[in-house]
Amino acid sequence: MDESQWPTGADVLVRTLLASGVDTCFANPGTSEMHLVAAIDRAPGMRAILGLFEGVVTGAADGYARLAERPAATLLHLGPGLANGLANLHNARKAGTPVINVVGDHAVRHLQHDAPLASDIDTLARPMSHWVGRAQTPDEVAACTAQAITATQGTPGCIATLVLPADSAWGRTAVSPSIAPKAQAVAPNDDDIEAAASALRQYGSRALLLLGGKALRAEAIRAAFAVAEATGCRVASPGSNARMERGGGLPEVPRIPYAVDAALAFLADVDCIVLMGAPTPVAFFAYPDKPSVLIPENCRVVKAVAPGVDPQVAMAALASICVPEGHRLAYTPRVKATYPSGPLTPDSIAQALAHTLPENAIVVDESVTSGRSIYATMTGSGPFTLLGNMGGSIGFGMPVALGAAVACPDRRVLAMVGDGSAFYTEQALWSLARESANVTVVIFANHNYAILQGEWRNTGAGPTGRAARDMLTLDRPRADWVSLARGHGVAAERVADAAAFAQALTRAHASAGPRLIEVAMA
Amino acid sequence: MDESQWPTGADVLVRTLLASGVDTCFANPGTSEMHLVAAIDRAPGMRAILGLFEGVVTGAADGYARLAERPAATLLHLGPGLANGLANLHNARKAGTPVINVVGDHAVRHLQHDAPLASDIDTLARPMSHWVGRAQTPDEVAACTAQAITATQGTPGCIATLVLPADSAWGRTAVSPSIAPKAQAVAPNDDDIEAAASALRQYGSRALLLLGGKALRAEAIRAAFAVAEATGCRVASPGSNARMERGGGLPEVPRIPYAVDAALAFLADVDCIVLMGAPTPVAFFAYPDKPSVLIPENCRVVKAVAPGVDPQVAMAALASICVPEGHRLAYTPRVKATYPSGPLTPDSIAQALAHTLPENAIVVDESVTSGRSIYATMTGSGPFTLLGNMGGSIGFGMPVALGAAVACPDRRVLAMVGDGSAFYTEQALWSLARESANVTVVIFANHNYAILQGEWRNTGAGPTGRAARDMLTLDRPRADWVSLARGHGVAAERVADAAAFAQALTRAHASAGPRLIEVAMA
Repeated sequence: MDESQWPTGADVLVRTLLASGVDTCFANPGTSEMHLVAAIDRAPGMRAILGLFEGVVTGAADGYARLAERPAATLLHLGPGLANGLANLHNARKAGTPVINVVGDHAVRHLQHDAPLASDIDTLARPMSHWVGRAQTPDEVAACTAQAITATQGTPGCIATLVLPADSAWGRTAVSPSIAPKAQAVAPNDDDIEAAASALRQYGSRALLLLGGKALRAEAIRAAFAVAEATGCRVASPGSNARMERGGGLPEVPRIPYAVDAALAFLADVDCIVLMGAPTPVAFFAYPDKPSVLIPENCRVVKAVAPGVDPQVAMAALASICVPEGHRLAYTPRVKATYPSGPLTPDSIAQALAHTLPENAIVVDESVTSGRSIYATMTGSGPFTLLGNMGGSIGFGMPVALGAAVACPDRRVLAMVGDGSAFYTEQALWSLARESANVTVVIFANHNYAILQGEWRNTGAGPTGRAARDMLTLDRPRADWVSLARGHGVAAERVADAAAFAQALTRAHASAGPRLIEVAMA
Repeated sequence: MDESQWPTGADVLVRTLLASGVDTCFANPGTSEMHLVAAIDRAPGMRAILGLFEGVVTGAADGYARLAERPAATLLHLGPGLANGLANLHNARKAGTPVINVVGDHAVRHLQHDAPLASDIDTLARPMSHWVGRAQTPDEVAACTAQAITATQGTPGCIATLVLPADSAWGRTAVSPSIAPKAQAVAPNDDDIEAAASALRQYGSRALLLLGGKALRAEAIRAAFAVAEATGCRVASPGSNARMERGGGLPEVPRIPYAVDAALAFLADVDCIVLMGAPTPVAFFAYPDKPSVLIPENCRVVKAVAPGVDPQVAMAALASICVPEGHRLAYTPRVKATYPSGPLTPDSIAQALAHTLPENAIVVDESVTSGRSIYATMTGSGPFTLLGNMGGSIGFGMPVALGAAVACPDRRVLAMVGDGSAFYTEQALWSLARESANVTVVIFANHNYAILQGEWRNTGAGPTGRAARDMLTLDRPRADWVSLARGHGVAAERVADAAAFAQALTRAHASAGPRLIEVAMA
């Protein structure tokens, strides 16, 4: 074949992604990625979804992979484009979500000239990536892309960042696209499982089986409660989880509370904790007179899941030891939430959400202070999947909802977002509209950084002065989320009482495409 | 004094800033910065301005320091908060703007536990910072803060990032606040100035005096044109400049065009280039068959400004050698732009902007493709200051306008922003409203990444397919910038012809506080 007919490095990258099962690309490209755009355009089967800001792109990739169980690619424009995506990559990294970032860079020969957009991309990528690579020539693209894909695999999933200089994208190569080999599953270690079983039996009601990661899938939760019945142990989960199946008769997994004092009380009687895919519980933040580690000082810690082991598989192995054959788990009845009425209160809001939630919904929770009472109320709902923020960086909810909707077009997505959080990535609304994503966005508009108001009180500094008020309140001006949604192309309404909220939710869930509801909290 | 009465590390940080002349803090704090918020609240004289997204915070700090000629502080929440601010820090770094970032981190004892928000802040900061430091104890805060302030000084200004663990903020200390010593000015090197003078005389009309940085202040521009009259050299500037004085009878400095072929033609006859605070001209991006360096291969390069020297001072020194005593620069007449009429065209848009521009306005240019004809039309305006994007990372315009308005409350700011760019930091609108900033925002709404459409054509890939169209167009849905502005609390209108645009500009410039005009380009 004539060299001018060879594929470009960009073509090889896209074909390697497709051959390895990566067929969705969330993108915010620029000039240096134009040959990648052209390669995607030429490649049948690659879906490209534009974000107007890179935090939307990376958050969507996170939400996508949590549901699809395979990574999406992101396409980002040099160092600043990557930088804009780092906060949601941080969340994805902490959630164990696989993501493949493709970051364009200047042509290799151009880098020495310190052009305006030149920066040290590799260093920027490292804190939020498990793997960072760079294809210095078109010939290196196939192997480098396959390495990146492989690097994302495993349990938990990982973040790979592949830097592609423009000349590696536009240059032609005779090296064929690769297929990334699948990572081999790591079997649970028998000794770990035996140790866990024996600890649970020994400590009984003073043992806590803490489920995290894939141990929060439906079958693993059922198995955990069967183990609890057999051994007398308690079952719980961390306060926030990447993906948790709930409702539809599944037993309810209690969460460790966010507030340090409440978490300490929750864990006070635990003499032994068995970590089933969850880390040792630690405080979100440190406080002057409070501990960082939340379990009692002499609590025994048993890790049931070695690195690389799927917690679902480990949980099944534990149940096979602990649970008598023929055991049937008591059925957890579904109790439809009451239809709400009256003013908007934490309880009536929770009732409205629970009452209207469609079967098999995906719920993204970034409700922060407004949403703390919702969790319990949803116990009796139909089956749904709950996605939580594992990295604590806000601006997570709407982008993740976009990605989840792309992965699961037949399921309704409910994104519950505090107004302070929603501002960080409000551009996600536009992508929801463009993709006709089946997402109901609920904005809890208290016009406040309410969580910080609480933290302010913890400092003991007394009433806020002018400067502190200016940094902790959002009420001057009060944002109008109905206008913001419409400006981005999303239909919206505002509700001020509980019945109106329930009606608005019913309308939203039934509509094709996205819809936003501003809940006027104050 | 009783130890419990000692100031906190956070108090010492704020007092050190104030004692060193830093009295403005753009902030997006979180829990780990709550003691800093308390310290700011206690400190008379520190103005705190909230951004709803960190790119607004860092961009505003950039705009502020370009006008105020001293740095603002930023207050950012751990690694993800810093990450969100990096793109506009990149722009500030390339512009030579001093910025002091204060980034909260977990308490030192908490870091080992890998809590959700833990990340490697120092590594994240390095690519966009000239100085990175960390105050590991409250006793280290005073010295560390003073070092950070000192590190920002000089010509050009620098970015300093100070990481403050929460226990260094809340802990008490007997170490007094510091005052950062002022950096000493570096005098121009006589040999450099002599070499520049002799080169300009030798090459005459085949020499180009390229003004950058502070050589684009009014007096330096006048001096450069006097030198040109005396030696026969040409005068020009880079395509984009951090701060350039224009109008009000100042001679017009031609710019090197953005497009590579046009830039090559502009520089084709240059046998010698004298760099007066500007770098050697290079292409913004590399292209397969085009050079990276834009001056001819054998062009002699003379650097008139050694590192640390103020280009204004160097320019004055050069003029003192080259210009005969008693020389008076020919007056450049002001020619009021024609009142525009008819449809919106590049020319009528430029006329409307030029015709209505208030005296002493500050113009922030992020108009990208829509604004290329505006520059020339503004030749005859009253005096104004033009701020350009030096790092090429978009989402720069509205945040920088906010900072400029805070620095200069008595001057009107005009921010010209392409719609694609404006989306990245649209949250800036809310801060403009909150601060009643005297900013007129003009959004050129072509519902397109028009610059990328041009780059697409450069790739020779033919007409765009579905995937490429999806990545390069913004027309599905069409954003409604009037709704977006109102949603953020900013009054707005849309215009569709040139006379309406001029009338809207007049109204906007005369109003107190911000106002947005959507220019319907397509």
